[in-house]
Amino acid sequence: MLQTGLIHPSNPGCFYYLPVALRSMEKLVRLIDEEMHAIGGQKVDMPALCSADLWKKSGRWELMGKEMFRLLDRHNAEYCLGPTHEEAVTELFASQTTISYKKLPLLLYQVTRKFRDEQKPKFGLLRGREFYMKDMYSFDINEEAALHTYHSVCQSYGRIFDRLGLKWVQVQAATGNIGGTLSHEFQLPADIGEDQLLVCGNCGFSANIETMEPGQTECSQCQKNTLTESKGIEVGHTFYLGTKYSQAFKALFVNASNVPAVAEMGCFGLGVTRILAASIEVMSSEDAIRWPGLIAPYQVCVLPPKKGSKANEATLVAEELAQSLGNSLPNLRGEVVLDDRVQMTIGKRLKDATILGYPYVVVVGQKALEDLPSFEVICQQSGETMFLSKEGLVDLLSKVETI
Amino acid sequence: MLQTGLIHPSNPGCFYYLPVALRSMEKLVRLIDEEMHAIGGQKVDMPALCSADLWKKSGRWELMGKEMFRLLDRHNAEYCLGPTHEEAVTELFASQTTISYKKLPLLLYQVTRKFRDEQKPKFGLLRGREFYMKDMYSFDINEEAALHTYHSVCQSYGRIFDRLGLKWVQVQAATGNIGGTLSHEFQLPADIGEDQLLVCGNCGFSANIETMEPGQTECSQCQKNTLTESKGIEVGHTFYLGTKYSQAFKALFVNASNVPAVAEMGCFGLGVTRILAASIEVMSSEDAIRWPGLIAPYQVCVLPPKKGSKANEATLVAEELAQSLGNSLPNLRGEVVLDDRVQMTIGKRLKDATILGYPYVVVVGQKALEDLPSFEVICQQSGETMFLSKEGLVDLLSKVETI
Repeated sequence: MLQTGLIHPSNPGCFYYLPVALRSMEKLVRLIDEEMHAIGGQKVDMPALCSADLWKKSGRWELMGKEMFRLLDRHNAEYCLGPTHEEAVTELFASQTTISYKKLPLLLYQVTRKFRDEQKPKFGLLRGREFYMKDMYSFDINEEAALHTYHSVCQSYGRIFDRLGLKWVQVQAATGNIGGTLSHEFQLPADIGEDQLLVCGNCGFSANIETMEPGQTECSQCQKNTLTESKGIEVGHTFYLGTKYSQAFKALFVNASNVPAVAEMGCFGLGVTRILAASIEVMSSEDAIRWPGLIAPYQVCVLPPKKGSKANEATLVAEELAQSLGNSLPNLRGEVVLDDRVQMTIGKRLKDATILGYPYVVVVGQKALEDLPSFEVICQQSGETMFLSKEGLVDLLSKVETI
Repeated sequence: MLQTGLIHPSNPGCFYYLPVALRSMEKLVRLIDEEMHAIGGQKVDMPALCSADLWKKSGRWELMGKEMFRLLDRHNAEYCLGPTHEEAVTELFASQTTISYKKLPLLLYQVTRKFRDEQKPKFGLLRGREFYMKDMYSFDINEEAALHTYHSVCQSYGRIFDRLGLKWVQVQAATGNIGGTLSHEFQLPADIGEDQLLVCGNCGFSANIETMEPGQTECSQCQKNTLTESKGIEVGHTFYLGTKYSQAFKALFVNASNVPAVAEMGCFGLGVTRILAASIEVMSSEDAIRWPGLIAPYQVCVLPPKKGSKANEATLVAEELAQSLGNSLPNLRGEVVLDDRVQMTIGKRLKDATILGYPYVVVVGQKALEDLPSFEVICQQSGETMFLSKEGLVDLLSKVETI
């Protein structure tokens, strides 16, 4: 029942994540954790309730307007539900006594729900009012170091999309109400995308159309008239902030001359639920969900024969296969589903498996009962169908990358 | 810097979780996931923003009073920040078409932030305004099945506390504003606990004092005058709800006679951040944090000799040891920390390691350079100190249970 749905609408722009989608999201978070850890990121968790005082200090309490959910507590103190956490993290940094320059760069990130009171929530998870975001904040000793960190985080974003097998483009972007002097968006090219991009056919430069002059056709990098328009879904956004927040919150470190100095900051967002929704959007067809292999909710679906069919005896073989794959291959622990609705035909269940998007579907039929048993394997990503021995199957599946 | 703190205060009753504490919490969540999965629980994720309509339908919009954070969106629609999700989950169940009795019991749970506008937040994470809770909701075909599920969840709670090595007691409790006819609390006995418990010295029956007559000294189970008072920290609460919510939301399933029937419900809470705080509270001493072994942020700390000391050459041995333990023992992947602040004495770093509560501290000194190298190992839980060969050390640490 709940096994087959992905999300279910609640209030406008809010969703129940059902078990299968949540499983995929948890894998995506593990992937992000891995890559953030690889560049020295430390995971923290900041409150959703943010005091108005913090936002007034940065000057954004007014600026954010109706996009921010605001509320009063029982003592009439003003709060917002954090749409982003520059203020909070900078306060946290500022509260730590004598941070030595040796401890920088400091990269703090969290994967939490964010809140944005969208005028018109739409496209399901793509533009919701409550969504998961990975937001990272960097603190550096000077501009040079901060820009180095900036590029290192951008590279790690690229690795994440590469590991997901997604086509992506990094485009020059506007800094909006976050501020700062340098900004990029990570976009997945897609016709349904809300963002208009300009990509240079000559040098590869790309930018969000927001950053260009109206009607501009000349590339700002190579100066050729080779810009073409395309559309994209924004899944990541990076900002070099300079000292905009660290100055306001007195986020200081002690430099090599033992003198307090203002930290240089960057902030880096990845839309977790957005990546999930956008990748399904760009990879799927009308009649089948397709997931990035690494974060497919389950990797393998094993189909035993229909009850009462000639191959009936293969049912046991299928059950044993499903169990042994999950037990013997460490990468497939918990990743193998047995579709034991054996009152249904193989064809009907195969169709369901295609709709749900298991990367590998193993059909256990009459051939599994032969002296040299073989199994039909359908690889959803390539569309290929193979007949493999048990050893061949184990060999194929042992190479599936999981997280 | 941030490595050494656990939490940092934000607004009243709200906290930043720093990297070490978050790491422990993520382990606790994995433990809970394992145990919920073992009893058939399916993980979901429900919005924090809950429509007032839902809460009016159950009659709790007024009842919850000032404990609930309330807000308006930009269209002036009323919301609360979910302190608990009986309404939401029951609406989700009701929205699914024709759930067969064969699909029940259905156990849905989430691990998310909950919000409660406490009059006086106190005791750090023990009584916060924003905290993590695991809440599970069960749907059954009848009372008998629902009570069976109820006991199965209670047993799984017991297993969780046992695996954490915590002393716990399950006490009869009041149902409060959640409702229902049967309720238990899971309490960790502790002098700083806010809950007054009565425990029978004869039959072992226990109850929260709220459920008893004033001045009652007779055990309601064995009728002897053997009740004694003690204090506890509530870390879990279970409720058999009957049809209180399923009736109001028309949460129906199709029974064996193919007729729609109202589901019987239970709800089950575990205070995730509370367990973390309470277990540290009951296990630690004034000068050392002690964690339940399974969820200690890191299992092993390796201490290389002080720079310039006689054992200086053992520094490399220590570095290699830390690396090889983390690589060769699958249970210790990511669990080994090398404290390379070699300008500090072993004694000073050993003290820090004790304060931080690493279950195992390995001191690499002169003896590591002998023909038959040996290592000093301090087991924090037992207080024992041992001298072990590399093989002995690997053997000891390979048995450490991690999650």
